Amino acid sequence: MKLATLRTAGGSTTAALVTGAGSYLTLPALDVGALLAQPQWRLVVEKAAEAAADKDQASTEINLIAAADADLAPLLPRAGKVICCGLNYGDHIQEMGRELPEYPTLFAKYADTLLGANDAVEVHGSGRVDWEAELAVVVGSELFRADEDQAREAIGGYTVANDVSMRDWQSRTLQWFQGKAWDATTPVGPVMVTADEAGEEFEVRGYVNGELVQHGNTSTLVFGPAQLLSYISQFTVLRPGDLVLTGTPGGVGMGMTPPRYLEDGDVLTTEIDGIGRLENQFRIHAHAEATV
Amino acid sequence: MKLATLRTAGGSTTAALVTGAGSYLTLPALDVGALLAQPQWRLVVEKAAEAAADKDQASTEINLIAAADADLAPLLPRAGKVICCGLNYGDHIQEMGRELPEYPTLFAKYADTLLGANDAVEVHGSGRVDWEAELAVVVGSELFRADEDQAREAIGGYTVANDVSMRDWQSRTLQWFQGKAWDATTPVGPVMVTADEAGEEFEVRGYVNGELVQHGNTSTLVFGPAQLLSYISQFTVLRPGDLVLTGTPGGVGMGMTPPRYLEDGDVLTTEIDGIGRLENQFRIHAHAEATV
Repeated sequence: MKLATLRTAGGSTTAALVTGAGSYLTLPALDVGALLAQPQWRLVVEKAAEAAADKDQASTEINLIAAADADLAPLLPRAGKVICCGLNYGDHIQEMGRELPEYPTLFAKYADTLLGANDAVEVHGSGRVDWEAELAVVVGSELFRADEDQAREAIGGYTVANDVSMRDWQSRTLQWFQGKAWDATTPVGPVMVTADEAGEEFEVRGYVNGELVQHGNTSTLVFGPAQLLSYISQFTVLRPGDLVLTGTPGGVGMGMTPPRYLEDGDVLTTEIDGIGRLENQFRIHAHAEATV
Repeated sequence: MKLATLRTAGGSTTAALVTGAGSYLTLPALDVGALLAQPQWRLVVEKAAEAAADKDQASTEINLIAAADADLAPLLPRAGKVICCGLNYGDHIQEMGRELPEYPTLFAKYADTLLGANDAVEVHGSGRVDWEAELAVVVGSELFRADEDQAREAIGGYTVANDVSMRDWQSRTLQWFQGKAWDATTPVGPVMVTADEAGEEFEVRGYVNGELVQHGNTSTLVFGPAQLLSYISQFTVLRPGDLVLTGTPGGVGMGMTPPRYLEDGDVLTTEIDGIGRLENQFRIHAHAEATV
């Protein structure tokens, strides 16, 4: 099944199931993360779907939203952890003449960085805004010191993300955090495809104003989804609704000759077959920061 | 005033005020962060203190806990953001012959890393456990794109932290996160001293089994508390109860010849005059991780 998080009229959000007809059936949870945190979440979804199918059942509140009316929120607006892996596409690493890494390169961001699938991205104070199309893994059940099989079982599903990076800030120091943790700059969505319905590998594509700039297949990941979750869980607990970004294939703007960055008005599209597409326009206000 | 977070019998926590006599007066908030999130939090504290002074006022619940009975929880067990600065003590940087940095080196961890002031630290899977005694700043009010004066106003208070680091994991890749984000390994507390009662500079000391190993004065910080908060707020919002660690002075184990790491049973003491002391015993189980 495909699950989404929608903004509601009251300024809140709701989890929703994507129906066969492409509309959204609202579910009794604030977002996909809150839904997954309910151990019986599949039953909750089934019950809502049955109630919607049997429209005579007036006692149950049914709310179907047409695709055209849906306002997609960040898939996991309240994710406790958003952990990212860098340097993870083997073909790209090898074409650059580097050794495959022995350990995943990990860094953290907070849920405040996340943004909806079709939201505009406002950037104040960076002139080097770059793209990183990625497959993201949604944690479905709690795991700690899990082996790879346990980690595979704990995968809730998959979604699309773009780890938009402010390269000027990222390169100021050795630690990438300050180039990666800008509020409302990491689009994620439009849906989570549950692990049982997702394939084994994914084609990841990134486009700027319709031009293909990134293309990779997750079969070439050095550390696959279950390996990453297992590795991370050796030192920190992962909970339902946490998000792990698996890294980006070649073709980022920083790697071009000359380097290319997003400009005010550009549209970034991030797409994974079988999951969906993010389409985000950029508003870039490149004034300097106030201090330091 | 001095505020703390205590564990309660029911497995929960409560915010508390340290009284003049050194006991703890419980406050109507889950922890210091939840207290600071109430705009009128000073009134809440004053009301509780008045009610405690006027013991005839039977309608108000008064709960005084003796110091000996207090079980200190992590000061901010639910902090939304725990952002750390590295390489920030100017005297140490200069004695190493390095240039002072132009920008702060920042990295992130999650609230799961935090631990109480007297808790044992259990480490599974690292054999290079090192210490980093630090002054930590508690955010008192929300700030975003704040200048330095606004940031200074937003400081709620100061506390003591030790950014305990697993050097073997930290050095596996360029990003430090995996050596810094181990659950329940970063003691923080014992109290927050409110900004109005704290001094301008702090003596930070770290001891291993009673032997002084680190000593620095925050007057030599390259980026002081208000500068750090202002800088971070250029890209991400800081909220009441968020925590910013200001970096560690010289004297970490990794920098010794030969390097020295914590051993099973060692006691790490972290102390700042005017705030208090953390005392944490280590249980080190250095088996290898399960995977990768």
